[in-house]
Amino acid sequence: MKLQRLEEKELIQAIRKEFRTRRQAGLTLGIGDDAAVIEADRKNLVVTKDLLLEGVHFFVSLHPPRLLGRKSLNVNLSDLAAMGALPRYALLGLGIPLRTGTGWIEDFFAGFKSAAKEYDVKLIGGDITRAKKVTLSVTLLGEGKNMIKRSGARPGHFLFVSGTLGEAREGLLLLKKGAKLGENRRVDKMLKAFLDPKAQVELGEKLSRLRAASAMIDISDGLSVDLGHICEESGCGAEIERERLPVSSELRSLQKRSFDFALNGGEDYQLLFSVPPNRLDAVSRLKKKYALTCIGKIFKEKGIFLVNSRGRRKTIQPRTWQHFNSGLVYSIT
Amino acid sequence: MKLQRLEEKELIQAIRKEFRTRRQAGLTLGIGDDAAVIEADRKNLVVTKDLLLEGVHFFVSLHPPRLLGRKSLNVNLSDLAAMGALPRYALLGLGIPLRTGTGWIEDFFAGFKSAAKEYDVKLIGGDITRAKKVTLSVTLLGEGKNMIKRSGARPGHFLFVSGTLGEAREGLLLLKKGAKLGENRRVDKMLKAFLDPKAQVELGEKLSRLRAASAMIDISDGLSVDLGHICEESGCGAEIERERLPVSSELRSLQKRSFDFALNGGEDYQLLFSVPPNRLDAVSRLKKKYALTCIGKIFKEKGIFLVNSRGRRKTIQPRTWQHFNSGLVYSIT
Repeated sequence: MKLQRLEEKELIQAIRKEFRTRRQAGLTLGIGDDAAVIEADRKNLVVTKDLLLEGVHFFVSLHPPRLLGRKSLNVNLSDLAAMGALPRYALLGLGIPLRTGTGWIEDFFAGFKSAAKEYDVKLIGGDITRAKKVTLSVTLLGEGKNMIKRSGARPGHFLFVSGTLGEAREGLLLLKKGAKLGENRRVDKMLKAFLDPKAQVELGEKLSRLRAASAMIDISDGLSVDLGHICEESGCGAEIERERLPVSSELRSLQKRSFDFALNGGEDYQLLFSVPPNRLDAVSRLKKKYALTCIGKIFKEKGIFLVNSRGRRKTIQPRTWQHFNSGLVYSIT
Repeated sequence: MKLQRLEEKELIQAIRKEFRTRRQAGLTLGIGDDAAVIEADRKNLVVTKDLLLEGVHFFVSLHPPRLLGRKSLNVNLSDLAAMGALPRYALLGLGIPLRTGTGWIEDFFAGFKSAAKEYDVKLIGGDITRAKKVTLSVTLLGEGKNMIKRSGARPGHFLFVSGTLGEAREGLLLLKKGAKLGENRRVDKMLKAFLDPKAQVELGEKLSRLRAASAMIDISDGLSVDLGHICEESGCGAEIERERLPVSSELRSLQKRSFDFALNGGEDYQLLFSVPPNRLDAVSRLKKKYALTCIGKIFKEKGIFLVNSRGRRKTIQPRTWQHFNSGLVYSIT
């Protein structure tokens, strides 16, 4: 095993290779998707975990603790949503510095609890420890039948995205400039997108139940990067129409680079999924309840292409927005 | 929900109260034991997670990365062992500072992998992120049939402990004084107890299969504290005979306060369990393969008592050894 500085994606691939297991009874899906899937009594047990670290994923001074409690659960819920699974149980690992005020902890747990209630998740365990920085580690267990992997997209399938994109990035920029919640409606929408994202659990579960999506991922690193994951796992390429990207009027009015934010913003926690032509009718019915936008199509040709309003086509490189600092990391080969 | 500075135990109790759920189909055991238990197809799915933080639970300068990789898995394996469950799947959340050398990461994963292989655990997911300090969060999933809770001890049951106690504490003291592995056999035994503990998974599973233990916990906080957990959950008291505490000749020769270390040391990762009189024969048979010592008995009278060689009995207060710094934390009421 030899290492060189590389991107997180390569590290994950290297670990996957290093820890590869023979096809094993009971394990449906291991490292490399949004969550692991274990077979359990006709249903699948779906497991995911994420670390949220002070100074890397959030700043205590910018993030109200109640919303941080909600977000720590929602970013994990979003991974289950991307499998089409329903969340059931949570474990919370919490590291708190001694300086932390009691009010902060009360508010954090109030937020965690409100999100748990909203999604009918039970907290069943975890641990608490003193820490130098606030350290949040949530593990979520869910269940479902037809798990939607990243690898099922095929040429000719249509690409859809839920909600609007790019607002979380704008929200963080505004926060860092000193914006506060409750001062301006448009600004609030941006701030909330970053501080209090909502996982698309219900939508994910419906797409699974209707077998409407052939591949799905949640947009946490940004549309271009997460579409790159689908293309790579599915062995295909994709074309996006720039004019179709769902950008809210609020973001357009606040940010000149709104399309760039929508493409490479990150932390949107919306769902990106591919739909076979014969399942378009199912997605059309879901449009009555959910904001869903067809943004492009899957192609056989590798690469991700952006088509502008004049039909000009250019290759884009998946890139993510390293919001607090420069990113990782290493590769294990 | 109101907070005041208090001990971790009370915080856990408060969270348990705050997140209490109605008796729920499928959830056998929630917050408060060594692991959570979910019903799954005639077997139980057992879940546990622990955070290990640089500067709190380990120092990068003192802990060889290979052994840290092993330990991050073993401390979680120990929680499953304490339920009598067999480990199956692991998820790893890893935060690494940018300054971390590639060799360090290679060695960490080599250690993690060696422990995973030893216990037949598959790594199925997790996440990796940049961090200010090395942050390790392991979630373990296991399975088993007769889960051994902390609450099953009854007056008249005998108390047993596996292995020897107090060595991890001595090991850390020696490490801090500059001791190195490979210089002295006796010192090595102490250092390894701290750096590379072995979870008693096989023993735990056998005790479960033979239905030999009425209550069980792993000794992570120290014998006095962890016995306190059993007594509290079981609604009883206990008496320990000082002369029976398993203290190795190596520890005795190195440390004058060896009995104190055995009683309040922490990080032993041995199993402490109670045995009904009619199951003593099963435990006797296990003694052929495992180092098991009867250290005392469960009583109806609340409190933990220590009896010395002259038969003098005194109450002891469960106390833990805060090894790197003063401990947490808070209570949520």
